[in-house]
Amino acid sequence: MAYVAPVRDYQFLFENVFKTDQYSNLKGFADADAGTVAAILEEAAKFAEEVVHPINITGDKEGCTLDPITHEVTAPKGYKEAYKALTEAGWTALSGDPQYGGQGLPHFVNTAFSEMLSGASSAFGMYPGLTEGAISALTAGGTQAQKDLYLPKLISGEWSGTMNLTEPHCGTDLGLLRTKAVPNGDGSYKITGQKIWISAGEHDFTSNICHLVLARLEGAPAGVKGISLFLVPKFIPDADGNPGERNSLQCAGLEHKMGIHGNSTCVMMYDEAKGFLLGAENEGLKIMFYMMNNARFGVGLQGLAIGHAALVAANQFAKDRLQGRALTGPKSPELPADSILVHPDVRRMLLESRALIEGGRAFLAWVSLQADLAHVSEDEKEREKASDYMGLLTPVIKAYLTDKGLKVTQDAMQVHGGSGFTEHFPASQYMRDVRITLIYEGTNGVQALDLVGRKLPSKGGRALQTFLGEIDSYIAAEEADTKVPAYIKALKDTKAKLFDGTMWLMQNGMGNPDAAAAGSLDYLHLFGLTCTAYMWARMAKEAQAQIDAGATDPFFDTKLKIGRVFLERILPDAEAHLIKMKAGSDGLMALTDDQF
Amino acid sequence: MAYVAPVRDYQFLFENVFKTDQYSNLKGFADADAGTVAAILEEAAKFAEEVVHPINITGDKEGCTLDPITHEVTAPKGYKEAYKALTEAGWTALSGDPQYGGQGLPHFVNTAFSEMLSGASSAFGMYPGLTEGAISALTAGGTQAQKDLYLPKLISGEWSGTMNLTEPHCGTDLGLLRTKAVPNGDGSYKITGQKIWISAGEHDFTSNICHLVLARLEGAPAGVKGISLFLVPKFIPDADGNPGERNSLQCAGLEHKMGIHGNSTCVMMYDEAKGFLLGAENEGLKIMFYMMNNARFGVGLQGLAIGHAALVAANQFAKDRLQGRALTGPKSPELPADSILVHPDVRRMLLESRALIEGGRAFLAWVSLQADLAHVSEDEKEREKASDYMGLLTPVIKAYLTDKGLKVTQDAMQVHGGSGFTEHFPASQYMRDVRITLIYEGTNGVQALDLVGRKLPSKGGRALQTFLGEIDSYIAAEEADTKVPAYIKALKDTKAKLFDGTMWLMQNGMGNPDAAAAGSLDYLHLFGLTCTAYMWARMAKEAQAQIDAGATDPFFDTKLKIGRVFLERILPDAEAHLIKMKAGSDGLMALTDDQF
Repeated sequence: MAYVAPVRDYQFLFENVFKTDQYSNLKGFADADAGTVAAILEEAAKFAEEVVHPINITGDKEGCTLDPITHEVTAPKGYKEAYKALTEAGWTALSGDPQYGGQGLPHFVNTAFSEMLSGASSAFGMYPGLTEGAISALTAGGTQAQKDLYLPKLISGEWSGTMNLTEPHCGTDLGLLRTKAVPNGDGSYKITGQKIWISAGEHDFTSNICHLVLARLEGAPAGVKGISLFLVPKFIPDADGNPGERNSLQCAGLEHKMGIHGNSTCVMMYDEAKGFLLGAENEGLKIMFYMMNNARFGVGLQGLAIGHAALVAANQFAKDRLQGRALTGPKSPELPADSILVHPDVRRMLLESRALIEGGRAFLAWVSLQADLAHVSEDEKEREKASDYMGLLTPVIKAYLTDKGLKVTQDAMQVHGGSGFTEHFPASQYMRDVRITLIYEGTNGVQALDLVGRKLPSKGGRALQTFLGEIDSYIAAEEADTKVPAYIKALKDTKAKLFDGTMWLMQNGMGNPDAAAAGSLDYLHLFGLTCTAYMWARMAKEAQAQIDAGATDPFFDTKLKIGRVFLERILPDAEAHLIKMKAGSDGLMALTDDQF
Repeated sequence: MAYVAPVRDYQFLFENVFKTDQYSNLKGFADADAGTVAAILEEAAKFAEEVVHPINITGDKEGCTLDPITHEVTAPKGYKEAYKALTEAGWTALSGDPQYGGQGLPHFVNTAFSEMLSGASSAFGMYPGLTEGAISALTAGGTQAQKDLYLPKLISGEWSGTMNLTEPHCGTDLGLLRTKAVPNGDGSYKITGQKIWISAGEHDFTSNICHLVLARLEGAPAGVKGISLFLVPKFIPDADGNPGERNSLQCAGLEHKMGIHGNSTCVMMYDEAKGFLLGAENEGLKIMFYMMNNARFGVGLQGLAIGHAALVAANQFAKDRLQGRALTGPKSPELPADSILVHPDVRRMLLESRALIEGGRAFLAWVSLQADLAHVSEDEKEREKASDYMGLLTPVIKAYLTDKGLKVTQDAMQVHGGSGFTEHFPASQYMRDVRITLIYEGTNGVQALDLVGRKLPSKGGRALQTFLGEIDSYIAAEEADTKVPAYIKALKDTKAKLFDGTMWLMQNGMGNPDAAAAGSLDYLHLFGLTCTAYMWARMAKEAQAQIDAGATDPFFDTKLKIGRVFLERILPDAEAHLIKMKAGSDGLMALTDDQF
């Protein structure tokens, strides 16, 4: 039931599919040639499997503890030591800016590491994950002095970070927030209010915790135009930049949750706590969105990572569990029964899951490569395109990958049969852990609204046009002499449905925003299927090329067999999504409130 | 967040849709006229809402306790009192045979009550639920003396029952079981072995517990042909039929489970315990199947019941939660925000859920009516048909309703947003509780195999032909002058897909059982969609008829609006299921064990 990191899969993606060596002239990429990346991935896998995974189940059972007197939080046994090992090995600094002590490797390497960390223990992985969000906000909106003070300690992992958005009466609708900020006159502010569901809000393994807090200045405009972002450290840095005076903030309670028990989900109370403005007054949301987009990508990754971990456990269980006989006659007549791997429906669950995970992983890796290109490409057009893709695809990454992650954990439990429902096997924890990913950082419904209402129309639809154009060009280039025609045909069909759905949105959603919203999640799924069909076409091409070139590694043959399952059993959902979205909103809006 | 029982819906089904008054000449039905049933349903709802539901959340948090010395199990606080109230009010005897103290009401009345009980607290509802299974086994296979001794006490609820099938190394594959039975020479047997996952296996609210245990006699044929069924009471009844000597069996441990914490899931140890044969030696499975079919129907009901309860909570939450504004402009400008009910995607989740639940409920009620007709109809053809339907549709009820029950609880959690993931709201418990229904009494994959491999070919396909014939006749009778043409058309289309899938199975599954198995779950879903499309056509017809006749109850208008959502947003899945099943098994079987 051990965790096995997807090393080989990432090697294939970077080396064969995305050929990242082609970018060796770009900043950061020079140190990330195929050989180096392969070595890093091996080390990352070892760390995830041997250091982090052992504390996953115990952390779930033990949970976090709040001391009611001191308001300090203790994470489960072993977390502190694992975090120490994480920072000492330099994993938190992998893609950090070298100017602040980071290793400056491309994001796609960090994505691979993060999937392994999160798959080995999602609750543990969230601690450094939240810090990454804080780093992105500081990078986007901090002054040089703030960067100099905070970034090195956040990148090294000596300090950690959090995001404080939600209040009891508002989550999605941030315009309603009430936390107050009052200027102290010295450039700092007094922050007062209550924030809830603050992941990693308080714990015992860093010497400081930097809370990024949304608050409202007195007299600020109503709604989202009056929100500012503050950095509120647990210990106020002294003149030397070391943790000084204890700030007047504390964890007032821990949330009782269905899963991710190892992560401390805190109610945070700020009582005239000292905070420092990030960016301009009333423009907090702009910076928060850098952090949020980073977090959304991270949540999509988490959904995929937990799905992968659950699938590993299910594969293992299916091989070990002897029950019944193959319908075509005993496969292991020397044993009392065959393994349940002989049953087509068990294989269906395992292989559909794998098709989703491997397609999703390629999608994730491809988008993280865009994050690199958006920053370091020397071609302005390529930077613009990569940046457009990041914006367009982040909600798809978040919602599509977490929805499929949940499906995979459900099937992993189903493969386990009755054992899956008990807490003696890991299936239940994976399912309980993954469930939050469909909710936090904006529910999947909110992601769909972001895609349809904001990302599609942005800049006259430029991002979408570029994306569809890329797929059309790929099909045109491959169609004539492809060695994997089924994949090209499937991509063409799915992309045509996405185009059809987009046209429907343009014709119906403009005049009636409810119509666009009613179909938005189905549209997002159609989008996710198109992205992963594109990834499968590219993976199949390279796997086939390796086989044709005489490669004997069974990895390539397996890849094509998994791809076939994707074409046969995942893509048929595209048509249903298209039909459902075209049903529009009239049926949904027809009921009065009383009829619910 | 309170539970609200679906009284009105059942009244509509019995009175308007199935017109159960037409059977008033049949045994049991005379006492179940529309007025009486309506009154019973009102009382049942009151009992479920006021007596049972209050212990649901506390039972989840507290769970059951095993005394390590006495091996007695204590159920959560309030369970014992609620059980006492249940039996005193006579609810366990509702459809019991009057010969043994039952009230003799039709099963469909008991189905409505059971849904309410299970929806109010599924963990609690399992205690009397398991007893119902024991009653059906005794009724099918007990001697007259056994019936006289046990049935009155089981029907009154004074004693309870359990099912003991699973052992650590075997669940689905009962042929592997090892529990031994040795004749004592006096007609009784010594039972020795370990059984796991025994729901309601030990508790503190009945004076005796009757365990029905599968075991193997020495020298019995290998596999399923050598299994016998024994009744092994916790206390051996004395000459007067009262609980006498304590039998040598005990609960050796409680299972740690993801959900249904209020039900004691026991490891049972039998150490030369005294048992009494039910039916003939080596023919235990035959009787066990009566019990099992009863249990499978009960599990389908449970999936639906929990789904309904979760939907009630989600509806309530959506009305109360103020967040954001309607896309078409504020609906409640006097409030800081609109309720989330204004958002099309929230409505989509609530209404899809409701379309699934109300269609599923009709399906459940209709099949339970078949259980009555199979027993008491005076027309031999009708008895045969009803019995055929019970066999054919039980796996569909079990797997389709539980799968949809899970979908509904998932969406109920999603509607709750972050609150849903915390244990302060009921969404998490509903999701954790419902999850077992896809697994126990045969996983949903096993149900699909039962449908395709056993139920379809049974008696030359008679049951299926009759069922498809009924739908064809219904369409033919309605088509010309229906007032709800969209439903007739949808039924016709969906049934055509089911027919298509059936033909495919006949052509491909005969020669290759793997092909049939690979598509079996998709086929089962296609079947479930056809059944519920049939139910929606019948419900829509009656709702429309009421409106046309001038009824002003908004219930009928609401019903048609929900039905529209079923047509627009649930039925499009049928085509995807058909395409997936036709993919066959080649892709799934192509991988070697090493490739997993």
